[in-house]
Amino acid sequence: MAVAKVPSRQLFIGGEWVAPARGGKIPCPTTEEQIGQIPAATAEDVDAAVKAARQAFTRNNGKDWSRASGKHRAKILRAIAAKVVERKKELAVLETLDCCKPIEESEWDMDDVSGYFDYYANLAEKLNEKQYSPIEVPMEQFKSSVLREALGVIGLITPWNYPRRGSPPGVLNIITGLGPEAGAPLSYHPDVDKVSFTGSYNTARTIMKAAAETVKPVTLELGGGHCACVPQEAGCLASSIKISNPLEKDCRLGPLVNDTQYQKVKDFVKEAEDEGATLLCGGKRPPHLEKSYFLELMVLTDVTPSMRIWKEEVFGPVLTVTLFKTEEEAITLANDTQYGLGGAIISKEEGRCKRVAELLDAGIVWINCSQPCFCQAPWGGKKRSGFGRELGEWGLENYLSVKQITRYVSDDPFGWYPASKL
Amino acid sequence: MAVAKVPSRQLFIGGEWVAPARGGKIPCPTTEEQIGQIPAATAEDVDAAVKAARQAFTRNNGKDWSRASGKHRAKILRAIAAKVVERKKELAVLETLDCCKPIEESEWDMDDVSGYFDYYANLAEKLNEKQYSPIEVPMEQFKSSVLREALGVIGLITPWNYPRRGSPPGVLNIITGLGPEAGAPLSYHPDVDKVSFTGSYNTARTIMKAAAETVKPVTLELGGGHCACVPQEAGCLASSIKISNPLEKDCRLGPLVNDTQYQKVKDFVKEAEDEGATLLCGGKRPPHLEKSYFLELMVLTDVTPSMRIWKEEVFGPVLTVTLFKTEEEAITLANDTQYGLGGAIISKEEGRCKRVAELLDAGIVWINCSQPCFCQAPWGGKKRSGFGRELGEWGLENYLSVKQITRYVSDDPFGWYPASKL
Repeated sequence: MAVAKVPSRQLFIGGEWVAPARGGKIPCPTTEEQIGQIPAATAEDVDAAVKAARQAFTRNNGKDWSRASGKHRAKILRAIAAKVVERKKELAVLETLDCCKPIEESEWDMDDVSGYFDYYANLAEKLNEKQYSPIEVPMEQFKSSVLREALGVIGLITPWNYPRRGSPPGVLNIITGLGPEAGAPLSYHPDVDKVSFTGSYNTARTIMKAAAETVKPVTLELGGGHCACVPQEAGCLASSIKISNPLEKDCRLGPLVNDTQYQKVKDFVKEAEDEGATLLCGGKRPPHLEKSYFLELMVLTDVTPSMRIWKEEVFGPVLTVTLFKTEEEAITLANDTQYGLGGAIISKEEGRCKRVAELLDAGIVWINCSQPCFCQAPWGGKKRSGFGRELGEWGLENYLSVKQITRYVSDDPFGWYPASKL
Repeated sequence: MAVAKVPSRQLFIGGEWVAPARGGKIPCPTTEEQIGQIPAATAEDVDAAVKAARQAFTRNNGKDWSRASGKHRAKILRAIAAKVVERKKELAVLETLDCCKPIEESEWDMDDVSGYFDYYANLAEKLNEKQYSPIEVPMEQFKSSVLREALGVIGLITPWNYPRRGSPPGVLNIITGLGPEAGAPLSYHPDVDKVSFTGSYNTARTIMKAAAETVKPVTLELGGGHCACVPQEAGCLASSIKISNPLEKDCRLGPLVNDTQYQKVKDFVKEAEDEGATLLCGGKRPPHLEKSYFLELMVLTDVTPSMRIWKEEVFGPVLTVTLFKTEEEAITLANDTQYGLGGAIISKEEGRCKRVAELLDAGIVWINCSQPCFCQAPWGGKKRSGFGRELGEWGLENYLSVKQITRYVSDDPFGWYPASKL
């Protein structure tokens, strides 16, 4: 895989690029060669970023950003959207270098990123219209309404596999670092009002426990296995896909992101085979690709719900196949997992699609497709795939605090409870 | 205080009254005399209740309750509302015996309880109309919509000071018990999908850490000090209130709930006096009330933000007074606490009311009144007063899971990402 250099960057805190307090570096993953280094933030950097965010939040009583008009915020969000389009090619290459996804997918992702900023610019404007929305209360002496205010300083711990920026950035500080050194102090920080995390179930548990120390709200998007129910009537066609350097045109499958992940996926498959599953195809390094963590797409049959590969997230090019006889059995099989992010039903029968979509225990169900992600629609899981929804209006609500304002409007003096209402 | 007997009750699990597995009993608090005993549930009872709830949730593919029509659920909720009205006097006496609030307040609370069931019956019906609400997505090959489904088995850990049942009960199981023996196993339980808690900050931390073990969502309503900003222009009148057995007519202040709370409140005031605050009035046992934990209403002046009584929740009849010179100072003082549940502004100037209401860092702001609670309006706090909102449509959303259903509707075969959207 051709080595392209990742540009050197610092941490972005308080509107400036600064070196990490302890000067640490993390090598960039992806290939078997070193392609760059990023700064390793520690608690001191987290402190500085949180302090900068708090100052930006409260400055001028919030008029600079947190209580600024939607129009003002929208203008800045749209400028970011335009910049992402302008630098799309360059950003897509960086994204592919970072996580090995095919370049065409990264380009599509950059369209998404830009689209998200535009979408939330629109929502920021609409939010102004929704302020002081009246609540009907049953006593004429009172008027009640609702304000939606910026929640505060948010710690977003973002994933490496998707460049999502679905939420209004507030005033943005960016710190890169490892979980224990940078993620932990951010989650514990008493001046962070919320933590949003996308990643693994086990890390989420640690983050939620840290957040519990100061009862911070959390939003967790934790992945999970994705099950597609394909009844026989659906028909199906398999096709071969191009595996190559993900920067090549028409590449459909790049390498795994690093050695740890490569070993993990191979171990998963090996264990499944030991437990009785059959590897129908794939699982080898393609002969023309000697470097980087490439693996041919694998298809495993005879997989049963008791196997670890059924229950846990593999995060690699592995398709497991389990046969079912009835629709009910398919649903039971699909729900027999602790995860519940996404699932799909492929069928020509509309009634079947509706029934299965309703009974799949997941936050997202695709009918006759798989994995399209629109910023307008809510994204998030159930069970151990986490909670809270990103994207759509839910993605904005996630970062708003709802304030009830109730006013006494009678001329009579306000006193003790009047006689019973019933 | 007259001793009225609390009727003997068992645990309510799976539609039946059953004895707690280990047969424990908790004495009822309130007076200095024993007025009854309630069952002390343990992990075994929690298991049984969760199992019963799960069965009720999934029975008949959810058609019995969790996926039943709103009309069906509304009918049951309205029947409960009617029953509460029918037995209002009796329930109000029990409520006053339980938490010592004046009987007229308890009667008002029963009106609330009944009103809440009616209100959520209406929302249950309206929810049906909101199902499959379309989401506009930018590609015509896809149709997207949103389903709102019952979230699952919910563990509600309710407070002793308010008989709130603001959420749709699902199939209701009631277990009484102490935190470590009953609350903890409920919060840890792997088959509970969410925990909602009303109580203290410290207990909330424990509960959220327990919930983090299986990344369950939590809603926390944690109280906090309530600050009223009263500028000089507002004018103000103090009045004396009747302190008596809370079952007496016109009682406005009953005793504290138990010895622990009695001591805690007195210690708070003693500590504040040691730190320089002045007890203007109150703080003694009224001479005509020799039994139960009565305390005269206390007014403390010269209170500063460094005192513990300023920062922590007292939960007793203590009014602290701090003088301010400007509106800005009042807001700074009011926000100088780790809590943020409610606050009030008393003023004749409308502009001032609006400014202060917007800048008070709390989930609820009252203007020219204090503490009215309408089931239509969102209730909940910020900072260490917790997160999530009860009541109103928010109270229902809290217990719903949002499912995105996205359907591919084109006749072309579904394949790889089409060319970039931009």
